[in-house]
Amino acid sequence: MSFNTFGRLFRFTTWGESHGPAIGCVVDGVPPRIPLAELDIQRHLDRRRPGTSRFVTQRREPDQVKILSGVFEGQTTGTPVSLLIDNVDQRPKDYSDIASKYRPGHADFTYDRKYGIRDYRGGGRASARETAARVAAGAIARKILGNSVEVRGALVQVGDRKINPTLWDWAEVSRNSFFCPDAKAAKDWESYLDEVRTNGSSVGAVVEISASGVPAGWGAPVYGKVDAELAAAMMSINAVKGVEVGAGFAAARLTGAENSDEMRSASEGSTEFLSNHAGGILGGISTGQEIVVRFAVKPTSSVPTPKRTIDVDGHDTEVATKGRHDPCVGIRAVPVGEAMMACVLADHMLLHRGQVG
Amino acid sequence: MSFNTFGRLFRFTTWGESHGPAIGCVVDGVPPRIPLAELDIQRHLDRRRPGTSRFVTQRREPDQVKILSGVFEGQTTGTPVSLLIDNVDQRPKDYSDIASKYRPGHADFTYDRKYGIRDYRGGGRASARETAARVAAGAIARKILGNSVEVRGALVQVGDRKINPTLWDWAEVSRNSFFCPDAKAAKDWESYLDEVRTNGSSVGAVVEISASGVPAGWGAPVYGKVDAELAAAMMSINAVKGVEVGAGFAAARLTGAENSDEMRSASEGSTEFLSNHAGGILGGISTGQEIVVRFAVKPTSSVPTPKRTIDVDGHDTEVATKGRHDPCVGIRAVPVGEAMMACVLADHMLLHRGQVG
Amino acid sequence: MSFNTFGRLFRFTTWGESHGPAIGCVVDGVPPRIPLAELDIQRHLDRRRPGTSRFVTQRREPDQVKILSGVFEGQTTGTPVSLLIDNVDQRPKDYSDIASKYRPGHADFTYDRKYGIRDYRGGGRASARETAARVAAGAIARKILGNSVEVRGALVQVGDRKINPTLWDWAEVSRNSFFCPDAKAAKDWESYLDEVRTNGSSVGAVVEISASGVPAGWGAPVYGKVDAELAAAMMSINAVKGVEVGAGFAAARLTGAENSDEMRSASEGSTEFLSNHAGGILGGISTGQEIVVRFAVKPTSSVPTPKRTIDVDGHDTEVATKGRHDPCVGIRAVPVGEAMMACVLADHMLLHRGQVG
Amino acid sequence: MSFNTFGRLFRFTTWGESHGPAIGCVVDGVPPRIPLAELDIQRHLDRRRPGTSRFVTQRREPDQVKILSGVFEGQTTGTPVSLLIDNVDQRPKDYSDIASKYRPGHADFTYDRKYGIRDYRGGGRASARETAARVAAGAIARKILGNSVEVRGALVQVGDRKINPTLWDWAEVSRNSFFCPDAKAAKDWESYLDEVRTNGSSVGAVVEISASGVPAGWGAPVYGKVDAELAAAMMSINAVKGVEVGAGFAAARLTGAENSDEMRSASEGSTEFLSNHAGGILGGISTGQEIVVRFAVKPTSSVPTPKRTIDVDGHDTEVATKGRHDPCVGIRAVPVGEAMMACVLADHMLLHRGQVG
Repeated sequence: MSFNTFGRLFRFTTWGESHGPAIGCVVDGVPPRIPLAELDIQRHLDRRRPGTSRFVTQRREPDQVKILSGVFEGQTTGTPVSLLIDNVDQRPKDYSDIASKYRPGHADFTYDRKYGIRDYRGGGRASARETAARVAAGAIARKILGNSVEVRGALVQVGDRKINPTLWDWAEVSRNSFFCPDAKAAKDWESYLDEVRTNGSSVGAVVEISASGVPAGWGAPVYGKVDAELAAAMMSINAVKGVEVGAGFAAARLTGAENSDEMRSASEGSTEFLSNHAGGILGGISTGQEIVVRFAVKPTSSVPTPKRTIDVDGHDTEVATKGRHDPCVGIRAVPVGEAMMACVLADHMLLHRGQVG
Repeated sequence: MSFNTFGRLFRFTTWGESHGPAIGCVVDGVPPRIPLAELDIQRHLDRRRPGTSRFVTQRREPDQVKILSGVFEGQTTGTPVSLLIDNVDQRPKDYSDIASKYRPGHADFTYDRKYGIRDYRGGGRASARETAARVAAGAIARKILGNSVEVRGALVQVGDRKINPTLWDWAEVSRNSFFCPDAKAAKDWESYLDEVRTNGSSVGAVVEISASGVPAGWGAPVYGKVDAELAAAMMSINAVKGVEVGAGFAAARLTGAENSDEMRSASEGSTEFLSNHAGGILGGISTGQEIVVRFAVKPTSSVPTPKRTIDVDGHDTEVATKGRHDPCVGIRAVPVGEAMMACVLADHMLLHRGQVG
Repeated sequence: MSFNTFGRLFRFTTWGESHGPAIGCVVDGVPPRIPLAELDIQRHLDRRRPGTSRFVTQRREPDQVKILSGVFEGQTTGTPVSLLIDNVDQRPKDYSDIASKYRPGHADFTYDRKYGIRDYRGGGRASARETAARVAAGAIARKILGNSVEVRGALVQVGDRKINPTLWDWAEVSRNSFFCPDAKAAKDWESYLDEVRTNGSSVGAVVEISASGVPAGWGAPVYGKVDAELAAAMMSINAVKGVEVGAGFAAARLTGAENSDEMRSASEGSTEFLSNHAGGILGGISTGQEIVVRFAVKPTSSVPTPKRTIDVDGHDTEVATKGRHDPCVGIRAVPVGEAMMACVLADHMLLHRGQVG
Repeated sequence: MSFNTFGRLFRFTTWGESHGPAIGCVVDGVPPRIPLAELDIQRHLDRRRPGTSRFVTQRREPDQVKILSGVFEGQTTGTPVSLLIDNVDQRPKDYSDIASKYRPGHADFTYDRKYGIRDYRGGGRASARETAARVAAGAIARKILGNSVEVRGALVQVGDRKINPTLWDWAEVSRNSFFCPDAKAAKDWESYLDEVRTNGSSVGAVVEISASGVPAGWGAPVYGKVDAELAAAMMSINAVKGVEVGAGFAAARLTGAENSDEMRSASEGSTEFLSNHAGGILGGISTGQEIVVRFAVKPTSSVPTPKRTIDVDGHDTEVATKGRHDPCVGIRAVPVGEAMMACVLADHMLLHRGQVG
């Protein structure tokens, strides 16, 4: 219900600015007696961390997480888990220019119009740095979901270059710098993004997140639909401009006979679907199939080419961004999208248990 | 926060099943002293009503709304507005077959897996009939927004047939049966959908909703972003599988220089944007430009062709749907999408006023 | 979270004014497959109904409840249960005088100061009539709690006349017009309240509500404490001015050694407490003992003696109330308090199941 | 909505255990451009701090607050304010005994029954240490309320010794160790509490909190009543067992004519009430009079006398508490109660502005 809180029963509240002393989150509603150590969270943070390759921002942040509460003798206690990540590499001088000018495509202008004040250092609260806190919360959500639910993500398009879905190999995702499941596409993106990077340009991307092992029955009508909450979750990630579930926008071009997923009985009373246009969700409730969500990430607006804009006094001017930025911010959005998927599912797991038992 | 409630300060709770005695909603948080009559709501309900053309379901529902509370001597009092719409044309026999079989692409299977019980008559709570309550709530949201904010919608794609955006004419929208802003496309769709209809088939569609006159500054970081809430709002509408804001998925193919909207100072201290790839939202906060959202609607899954499925006992069977259905359910989604846009904006108008004054 | 909504997982939203066409509520989050009929609700409404004795208001309302949704073939479906109660005996002329004058002790003045408008007929939304909707919601809450939890209430003080706790007999409660558990006190109150009534006066009261059979472990720190939510629940009832749990205000006079409830092991691994100063709650979580709450109800402010006040234009004037009112509004508060206790407990039962499983 | 979150528009989430590395809170919904420094918060924390006199716990905690986010160049930015207070004086050995035994009157037993695990060091999350975070949040709430609203508290009863209300002097409150407004009572309590303290005993207390300068119109029917939320706020404080508003439980003994507060027109269109039995709230909405709340605090259950109890294996045993505890925990509850009053009012100030403008 709050501006900086996500979720209902499993819920987290994030705080912190890009160049403040630290960022963090408070994760509430965690079931008790779940083994939890900082390492469980750290390994996910390490996947999102800046500076891991030349294709992401070169800001040097170790992103070391500290658990300040809610864990006792290695187990969650059911009370709020407070997580803190110190900001280390702040270099405020990198950003001095943007104090007086609004960068096109950034939230500078809107924050000022809303609040009449903004922490302009590194984008302040609007910085993608906030997503570290989401990844930390998501790591706890994964522990709640347990081993039977697997949440994974991949980059499936960079600029106008899509992967070949028939070459999809999950093992490939951890072998390249792009979370790309198609080894051939990854190779192609490497040279493409090197070109983008050296030109000081940036490109958009499409990310796909899936969850397998979700039982049928999670979610709820009408405003508690899993897909509605996944849409909000993904759209709340910085730079995301579109979200789709299953066949998504392609469903608009299909007929009802083509789009509906037929069913057959399978072994031991389970149900088999003959296709998955629904993306694992019908009527807002999970079908037991793989849940599949894709989202579009716009290109970073921080580019070194001077762009027309206005200054804080309303006068015409130009601005170019010289800071350390991601040539394709969609890459680091993969672990963030995974985290948001895990958080939505953990919440619905608890909500379902609450109402239905 | 609840399964059947939408919104924060301006919030509504809907209830009712397709073939129960009535449906309705309770709208809470309405500011006082707003003139409100049943007619203000009725005229929006009439646009969504079934049976208005041969391209939508032939169920005969007058959808007459009654205001049961919250209005005194023609004005809102600040207390909850309860709205009730009787169900008139129920014909339960049309649906007798689906009591024992799960229709592919419908929520029959998931409701049963979740709740262990379902009101199978006409889809029960999962019926698109629920959207009448949204339209009613949206009519009140429009009154809160006042005349300076205009929320409008149009159908921009049916099956694989898109409108020509250069022919966009808002006046055209009310002249055809499709809410189509392109007279030429409307003509084309007429013959196309007649064919779909007589074949007993159905097709998907894409709807675009826009809001003009929204001042800069509504919305909020990080989980209270206007676009995140619009995404949830649209995705919660029956049959919607994708949502995008501004350039949306197309932004993935652009460079940062192309995608970011440059700014210039305009008359009297206002700001002009030279493009609107952002769709009127940056960092989750309105820019003052037109807010633009599109969503994809899947084709109705109710088709007369027999489809493979299972029955409630888990045995393989087939099912065909004989009821009265929309050949393109996306048509009637236009006023529903408008309503959801209005509700999200009214809520954020109040939230902004609450926090910032 | 809303002004007219109570609860989290089990939650209800009430609507309606004293002299509008109807009042009602929408109950959301109800677990599925619970047998529910209108009669289950009606029998609780009948206990709160006006006109049952000469000691309560003589307004004639049958308070017939209708279930409009959420129940199918006699069982809850997990979707919202909409309940409607028609207003029958409205007699608007009884209240014509109060349109222009603020009755002392009523919400007339504050509603006008807040909203700038009020439905003055019978107190509008501030009327105790709203509590019928609570009782209806509470009847559903009882069904969720099941037979192992018993929620009961009694009137323990009228004016300055208290019951003798050693004479407490639950069977007595249904035998007199006061929900009084002490036959002797009930006899005394009868003549006392006859005097109050014929004098056109009114008196306050104290109500005690208890719940037995609640297992240890419901509730939650720190702002989700059962006692905090019971306090809000009871204080939200019209005319309530104080709430206490267990020893309550008397605990202020005790020492730590006197007040803390010692424990012993009991049969089959259960725990026995040697006293119940805690009122069944420690640290916001149920102990397994009886939960005991008391609340003070102020005397009805509607009295026929002229009282000094101002009119809507701010001028000094006097007002006397001629309507049909309760000489002791605390009597009918007993079933209302029971309902609120049941609602809080049902919510916490689901919340506990959600988090802890 | 969450277990560890309080409030709606102005809301805070607290975290931390008594003997963890730190405690803190995240305060969300703060309006922008409010001057805020750590000193603004520190001066309130210093009033609640342990070790300030011999009548409160001798634990040595400097309670130094750090602002980690949401403030830029001395002003709030509208984004979440994260506050952190390090735990310094933990002495875990003081508490080693309670790991295996449930202290009567403490939350040890209920936490274990609920979660199956508890951080037994110093009471863990159930420790009164959590209230430091409330006081910190309350300091920000005061800044939102501004100078026109004054929130003050006083201790009005210790054990069975009440102050003499006719001697009430606010200036006296800061001159003694008890927040006592009656110099004579303070003198009496000094010797009384010295006796209690040297006996290793403890006593309960009653605290009164008032707010002046609140305009008429804050609050809302029916479940958003200011008094209902104040009741929850106060009852959520550790050891509180009763709450009353205005005349409170005494109202039960009055007649309607006695209890209702008459009104007269006053200078410049304002309204004067001739008494304040309502405690400044009618129908859940502020009247413009002083808001007055009282709450009862039970005696600390930590006493050195051995008490009968069970151990974690369910066997009968005895336990005595040797730690550093408050002989009258009600004393330090005064600044906590003030903080909760400030938080409720700040929230309702924003909520009122949101709905009514």
